[in-house]
Amino acid sequence: MLEKLYEQLENVYDEMVEIRRDLHMNPELSFQEKRTPAFIANYLRDLGIEVKTKVGGNGVVGYLKGGKPGKTIALRADFDALPIEDEKDVPYKSKVPGVMHACGHDIHTAALLGTAKVLSGIKDELKGNVVFLHQHAEELYPGGAKGMVEDGCLEGVDEVYGAHVEVNFPIGQVAVNDGYVQAASDTFDITIHGKGGHGAEPHRSVDPLVIGSHLVVDLQNIVSRRVDPLKPALVTVGAFHSGKAHNVIPDKAHLKGTVRTYDPDVREQVEKELKLIAEKTGEKHGAKIDVEYVNGYISLYNHPKETAYIKKLSTDIVGEDNVVVKPPDMGGEDFAYFVDAVPGTFFWVGGGNPEIDAVYPHHHPKFDVDEKSMLLTAKVFVSAVLNQ
Amino acid sequence: MLEKLYEQLENVYDEMVEIRRDLHMNPELSFQEKRTPAFIANYLRDLGIEVKTKVGGNGVVGYLKGGKPGKTIALRADFDALPIEDEKDVPYKSKVPGVMHACGHDIHTAALLGTAKVLSGIKDELKGNVVFLHQHAEELYPGGAKGMVEDGCLEGVDEVYGAHVEVNFPIGQVAVNDGYVQAASDTFDITIHGKGGHGAEPHRSVDPLVIGSHLVVDLQNIVSRRVDPLKPALVTVGAFHSGKAHNVIPDKAHLKGTVRTYDPDVREQVEKELKLIAEKTGEKHGAKIDVEYVNGYISLYNHPKETAYIKKLSTDIVGEDNVVVKPPDMGGEDFAYFVDAVPGTFFWVGGGNPEIDAVYPHHHPKFDVDEKSMLLTAKVFVSAVLNQ
Amino acid sequence: MLEKLYEQLENVYDEMVEIRRDLHMNPELSFQEKRTPAFIANYLRDLGIEVKTKVGGNGVVGYLKGGKPGKTIALRADFDALPIEDEKDVPYKSKVPGVMHACGHDIHTAALLGTAKVLSGIKDELKGNVVFLHQHAEELYPGGAKGMVEDGCLEGVDEVYGAHVEVNFPIGQVAVNDGYVQAASDTFDITIHGKGGHGAEPHRSVDPLVIGSHLVVDLQNIVSRRVDPLKPALVTVGAFHSGKAHNVIPDKAHLKGTVRTYDPDVREQVEKELKLIAEKTGEKHGAKIDVEYVNGYISLYNHPKETAYIKKLSTDIVGEDNVVVKPPDMGGEDFAYFVDAVPGTFFWVGGGNPEIDAVYPHHHPKFDVDEKSMLLTAKVFVSAVLNQ
Amino acid sequence: MLEKLYEQLENVYDEMVEIRRDLHMNPELSFQEKRTPAFIANYLRDLGIEVKTKVGGNGVVGYLKGGKPGKTIALRADFDALPIEDEKDVPYKSKVPGVMHACGHDIHTAALLGTAKVLSGIKDELKGNVVFLHQHAEELYPGGAKGMVEDGCLEGVDEVYGAHVEVNFPIGQVAVNDGYVQAASDTFDITIHGKGGHGAEPHRSVDPLVIGSHLVVDLQNIVSRRVDPLKPALVTVGAFHSGKAHNVIPDKAHLKGTVRTYDPDVREQVEKELKLIAEKTGEKHGAKIDVEYVNGYISLYNHPKETAYIKKLSTDIVGEDNVVVKPPDMGGEDFAYFVDAVPGTFFWVGGGNPEIDAVYPHHHPKFDVDEKSMLLTAKVFVSAVLNQ
Repeated sequence: MLEKLYEQLENVYDEMVEIRRDLHMNPELSFQEKRTPAFIANYLRDLGIEVKTKVGGNGVVGYLKGGKPGKTIALRADFDALPIEDEKDVPYKSKVPGVMHACGHDIHTAALLGTAKVLSGIKDELKGNVVFLHQHAEELYPGGAKGMVEDGCLEGVDEVYGAHVEVNFPIGQVAVNDGYVQAASDTFDITIHGKGGHGAEPHRSVDPLVIGSHLVVDLQNIVSRRVDPLKPALVTVGAFHSGKAHNVIPDKAHLKGTVRTYDPDVREQVEKELKLIAEKTGEKHGAKIDVEYVNGYISLYNHPKETAYIKKLSTDIVGEDNVVVKPPDMGGEDFAYFVDAVPGTFFWVGGGNPEIDAVYPHHHPKFDVDEKSMLLTAKVFVSAVLNQ
Repeated sequence: MLEKLYEQLENVYDEMVEIRRDLHMNPELSFQEKRTPAFIANYLRDLGIEVKTKVGGNGVVGYLKGGKPGKTIALRADFDALPIEDEKDVPYKSKVPGVMHACGHDIHTAALLGTAKVLSGIKDELKGNVVFLHQHAEELYPGGAKGMVEDGCLEGVDEVYGAHVEVNFPIGQVAVNDGYVQAASDTFDITIHGKGGHGAEPHRSVDPLVIGSHLVVDLQNIVSRRVDPLKPALVTVGAFHSGKAHNVIPDKAHLKGTVRTYDPDVREQVEKELKLIAEKTGEKHGAKIDVEYVNGYISLYNHPKETAYIKKLSTDIVGEDNVVVKPPDMGGEDFAYFVDAVPGTFFWVGGGNPEIDAVYPHHHPKFDVDEKSMLLTAKVFVSAVLNQ
Repeated sequence: MLEKLYEQLENVYDEMVEIRRDLHMNPELSFQEKRTPAFIANYLRDLGIEVKTKVGGNGVVGYLKGGKPGKTIALRADFDALPIEDEKDVPYKSKVPGVMHACGHDIHTAALLGTAKVLSGIKDELKGNVVFLHQHAEELYPGGAKGMVEDGCLEGVDEVYGAHVEVNFPIGQVAVNDGYVQAASDTFDITIHGKGGHGAEPHRSVDPLVIGSHLVVDLQNIVSRRVDPLKPALVTVGAFHSGKAHNVIPDKAHLKGTVRTYDPDVREQVEKELKLIAEKTGEKHGAKIDVEYVNGYISLYNHPKETAYIKKLSTDIVGEDNVVVKPPDMGGEDFAYFVDAVPGTFFWVGGGNPEIDAVYPHHHPKFDVDEKSMLLTAKVFVSAVLNQ
Repeated sequence: MLEKLYEQLENVYDEMVEIRRDLHMNPELSFQEKRTPAFIANYLRDLGIEVKTKVGGNGVVGYLKGGKPGKTIALRADFDALPIEDEKDVPYKSKVPGVMHACGHDIHTAALLGTAKVLSGIKDELKGNVVFLHQHAEELYPGGAKGMVEDGCLEGVDEVYGAHVEVNFPIGQVAVNDGYVQAASDTFDITIHGKGGHGAEPHRSVDPLVIGSHLVVDLQNIVSRRVDPLKPALVTVGAFHSGKAHNVIPDKAHLKGTVRTYDPDVREQVEKELKLIAEKTGEKHGAKIDVEYVNGYISLYNHPKETAYIKKLSTDIVGEDNVVVKPPDMGGEDFAYFVDAVPGTFFWVGGGNPEIDAVYPHHHPKFDVDEKSMLLTAKVFVSAVLNQ
C-alpha cells in the first residue's frame, strides 16, 4: 500500500510544484493571508475533504475521515510569507513587492496538499482519520498556532507531525531530534527614568546611561549564576539608546532585548530575575525602571516516541545514512503549541542543492530550495498516517 | 581722578545700553562674527585708539598708550552669541532667527567699549597702557582666546582682567575667587567595533553593547580610584547608542562624553586612563575600540595676587558685603588662555534682578540681565587700570 | 547460559558482601592504596586470571582469555576511599580513623570480583576476552584512570564498561544516559599584584580588591556571552581574599575557583577567555595578574551505541520501568579517560534503601548503600560480556 | 613684651627637651594614659595654674586667669602614644615595649607646658585668660577631644589653637591652611548573607562572592556620580573575604572599608548611598546584606579669620618665606571637635631635619623630629595669646 501511495505522490509532484510556484508568486504576510487560505480551502474541498476556515484567525483545517477505525493524525503546514524583497531571478519570483516566501512555507503547503490528495484517494481503506492543519502566521508573534489550538483544531487528535524544509541539509535527507529543539523566545523593553542635567553636575542628576550600563552588566548574572548550567538560557540586550550630547546627562535610557530558554521553569525564572534585577537596580540608583516583558512562542519539545517513529519511517524511505540529528538551536517555531497539546514531533527535510543555487540561508532575499523536498515531505507524512 | 572717571562712566551708560541693545538685536555665532568686530573696530578707532583686527581669527585688539610710564593692563570682553532662539518679549529682542546673546557677551562688549571711551579721554594723564581684548568665539571650541594669544595679543601685557555678567548674583555684587575656578573641558567619542550576529548566538559574535556597558562601568574607576580625591575630576558619558532590534546583536556601539578637570596633571592622567581602559576593555572582549579624544579649553586659574587686587578694588566700589566668593564650578571659559600666559583674574558681576525678569539661567531662551551690570563692570575695569 | 551465570552470581553474593565489608573496614586513600590492590591481585590470581599490578600507579588489571574468538570487553571498578570519618553504626564500620569508603568504591570492587569469579568459571566457553580494570585513585586529581590508560591497560580492548552505585536511585534500578554525562573539572588560582597604600590615597596605589571585584564581574561574561548557550559551562569563583584593615589598600588579592564544561572545545575556550580577561583586566588597571590554571579530569562521554547496549541488557534484567535516564551533572569522574580511548559507557546502579538507612548522600559520614546493588551490577557486567 | 617672652621661652627650652624626652621614654597608649596626665597636672599646679583632671576621660585642663580683661584663648596639645615598637637608637628611646611616641605628641605636650610656664610668669599683666587643653587619646577612635568638649573644657573660650609637629616640613617652617584640611573618617563593615552550595550548582545557591564583587564595583558610583565633583569624598574597601575552596560557593562574604569626606552633607550622603546600594544589591540577588557603619572623627575645619591670624603671627616670627600652605589631606584629627565648637585653627610646625635623621614619616618605628620645633610652637602659642 505504502509503495503505491509513494508512486501516486510522484505522480502528483508536478502539481505540487505548480501549487508551490503559484503560492511563491503570491506571498501574503502573517495575519494578512486571504488568497492563500482560500486556495487551500478550495483545494481540500475539491478533494472531498471537510474544511473549516477562519480557524483561530486565518487557519484552514481539513478533516479526512478514514473508512476504518484508527488514530487521528494531524499534519501541519504553515503558509505565511515574510516582508522581504524577492531577489531571485526565476520565473516564479514573487509578484508582490517587498513580500516573499523566504522560509519555505510555500513548500510546506504544497507538500501537505499533495499528501491530502493522495490520502483522500484511499479514504475508505484508511484506518483512522487525518487532520490537515494549514496554519497562518508562523513568522509573526503571537503566531497562528496558538489561536488554532485554542479554536479546537486538535480536538480528537492523537498525534501531530510537522515538517520544515531546511536549506542547510542537502536534498534527500531527513533530520530529527527529540526533547527541546527550539527555544521559547521572549522579548523585553526597558525604560530607565533618570533625571537629566548638565554633564558637569552628576550629583544633581540621576544618570540613566550609567544605570543602564550597570543593568546590562548585572543581567549577565542570570545566565552565569542563577540558572541551572545544564538548562540552556540566553539574555541578549539588542539595543541600548540614551543621550545625544557629549556634555548632557540624559533623562532616559531605552534597552531592548530577547530571552531564549527551553525549560518552562527556567523561562519563568529568567523573567522573574530580569524584572527583579531591573527593579532593584533602579531603586539602588534612585531611578524608576519600567520593564515591558512579552512572552513569545513557547519552546518546541519533540516527544521521544513520536520522534523515534518519524526517524524509523524516514530511515525506511531514505536509508540510515540520510537520517541525521539536528542539534537544538535557540530559534523559535510555533509548532510548539501543537506538541504542547498532543504528542508529536517536528522534523526537517533537506532542501539544499548547490546545483540549482539553493544555498542561501532562510530569510535571505535569494532563498530557494530544491522542490523535490516536497515529495520527501509528503512521503514521510503519508507514511506517518499509514504506519500507525 | 577715579571718582571723576566713575562719573564719566555714568554719563556713558546710556550709550553702553544703546550699544548692548544693538548687539543684542544683531547677534553673530562663534567664528562667524563680522558685523560685531567691524562695529567694535570702528568704535575704538573713533576714540583714537589704535586697532588691530582679524587677531587670531575675528578678534579685535585696541591699544591705548598712556602719556606716562606704567604697566600694560589688558581688559577682555568676548562678543559671540549662541544658537538659541530668543524668546524674550523686549524691544531689543534678537532679529536673527535661532541666534541670541544668551550669555551676556553683548553686555561685556558694551561695558568694555564704555571703559575704552572714558579711558581714552584721559590718555595723556594715563600711567601705562591699556590693551582692549575684544574676543570672538568664546562659546565654541577651540575658542577665540587661544588664537588671539598665539597671534600676539598679549605681547607687552603685564596683567589681564576679564569679567562675566552673572545672573545668579544680584545686581550690585562682584564675585571673585582665586585658584582654579573653571574646569578644563575635554570631549571623547568612542566606537566599539564588535561583530554583529543573531541574538541567540552570542558565541558567534562580539557583543559591543555588553562591552560598552562594561566600559561605562569601568570608567567610573577613574574618578573613584585613580585620581587624587582632593583634585576634582569628572567623566560623564553623555550618549550611548547601539543596536536596533530585540534579537540582533549589533556590530557597533557609540559612546560620547565629556571630561572635566582642574589640575593639568589630572587632566593628562584622566585622558591616559580613559584610553587605556578603553583599549584593554576592547582587547579583553576581542573587540577593537577607537577613542577620539579632543582637548577643549584648559582650566581657568585665577592668580591670587591679581584676584586680591580686584577684590580690594571692588570692595572700594560696592562695599565688603557686596563682594562675594564664587565657588569653582566644572564649566569652561577660554579666558583661561589669557591668564595662562600672563597674571590676571576673571571676575563676575551680578546681573540678576527679578524686578526686570532677569532670572533665567545663562543659555536660556529668556535669559536677560540688568544692564546696570555694565556700569559696575566698567568701574572695576577703570579702577584696575588706574590703581596699578 | 546467562540465566545459569545469574544463578551463580546469586551464589557468589555472600562472598561479595564479605569482600565489600572487608574493604569497607580497611579503606585506603587515593594514591596510597596497598592492601586493597594486593587483595584484588591475589583474588584474581586465585581464579586463574592473569594479573598485572602497579598499572599506571596502584592499578590492578586482570586478563581472562576466553576459549572462543570474540571481542575484548573491559570492565572497570575503582577502589580508593575518602578522607572522611565513618560515622555509621554498623559492624563493618571503617577501622581507619578519618578514612572511609563514602562513595561506594568497595561495592564496585566486590561486584567486579564476583563477576570475575563467575566468568572465570566459563573460561573455555567464553567468546572473546575480558579485562578487569581495578582502578586506584578516582577521588583525587590527577586520578588513576589516566595513568592506567597510558600504561596500556586498554590495549586490544574493544569496549569498556563501568558502573557506579548511586544512593539517589532506589535499589533495583539501573540508570543510563548517552553523550556528555559528567563534566570536565578544572581549577584556577588567581593572584592580583596591586600596590598597597593608605586607604585615603587610592591614587598612589593600585587597588587589587577593586580589580578583583571587576574581574569576578567580568568573568560572568564567559558563560553569559562567549560560550555557545547550548553547551554547558560554569565558572565559579569559590574564594576571594584581600586586605585586613578598614583603611589600608592591600597589596594583593587572591581568587580561586573551578571551571566545569562538557565539550572539549568549550573547555579550551573558557580557559583561554578566563586568562585573557584576567590579563587585560590587570593591564587595564596597571596591575599584574597571575593565573594558575589546572586541567582536571576530562568530561565523561558515554558512547550512544554502547549506552543503548547496556540499556537493553538492563531492561532484560530489571524490566523497562526500572531502567531510567540519569540527567547529566557537573560533577567529574575519571572513567572519562577509558571511554575517551575506546567505546563504552558508564552506568549507575541504584543503591538507595530507606529501610536499611541507605539514604545519606555520597561523601556523607553516614553514607551507605544496599549491598544487593552488587548483584545487579555484576549481572549487567556478565550480561555485557556474554551478549556481545 | 613679646620679645621678652620669646627670650624666656629660649631659656625654658632645655626643660622642654627634658620633659619631652621623659615622656618619650614613658609613652602611654590612647585611653590608657595615667603617668602622663599626672605629670602634666603636677607641672601646671606647680606653676600656680588651676587644674582640672579626668576631663572627658584622661584629659587635663589648666586655667590661667590673666590680671586684665581680654579674650579667653585655649591652646591644645595631645599626649597619647601609639602601639609601635621604637626602633630608634637614641638615649631617650621608649622604655615601653611596643609603645612609642611615633607621632610627636610628646613634642606638643612639652611645648605647651613650656608655653604655660612662660605665660604663668606674666599672669598679672596678662590680658584675658588662657586655657591649656592637654588631650588624651587622639590616635584612637572615638578620641579624647569629643569627650573633653562635652565635659565643658571650652566653656568661656573665645578661640582655640592647636599645633602638630610635622616631619614633612623642615624645621623653621610653619604651615597653615583654612577651610577643610582634614577629613571626616568613617568605617563600615558589610556582611553578605548568601547561601552556600556546590560550586557546580550556582542555581541552588546565592553566591555572596559574586554579590560582593558587584557591590564593590557599584560603590565606585558614589564618588564618580553621586557626590558633587567639587566636594572631596572617598570610599575605600580595605578588605574582602569570602570562601575557602575552589569548588564550593561560600555562605558569606565580609567587606570592610573607610569613608572620608570633608563636607558634613556629603558625609551624610555617602553613608546613605552606601547603605542603599548595599541593601538593593542584596535584594537584587536574593541575599541579605548587613551594614555596620561607624562615624569616626568629624572633618577638621580651620576658621579663615583665626587661620589668617596665625599666619600673620608666624610670618612675624619666621618670615614670609617660612610660612607655607599645607594642602588638605584625607587623614583625620580630632582637634576638629574643638574648632567645631569655637573659632580657631590647627597649624603645623616643621620638625624635619636630615642632619639628625628626623626624616622618617609619622607612625614609622624610627620617627623622630627636631626638638627645636617645640620652641617655635611655643612662640606661636605665646604670640597668639599676647596679640589678641
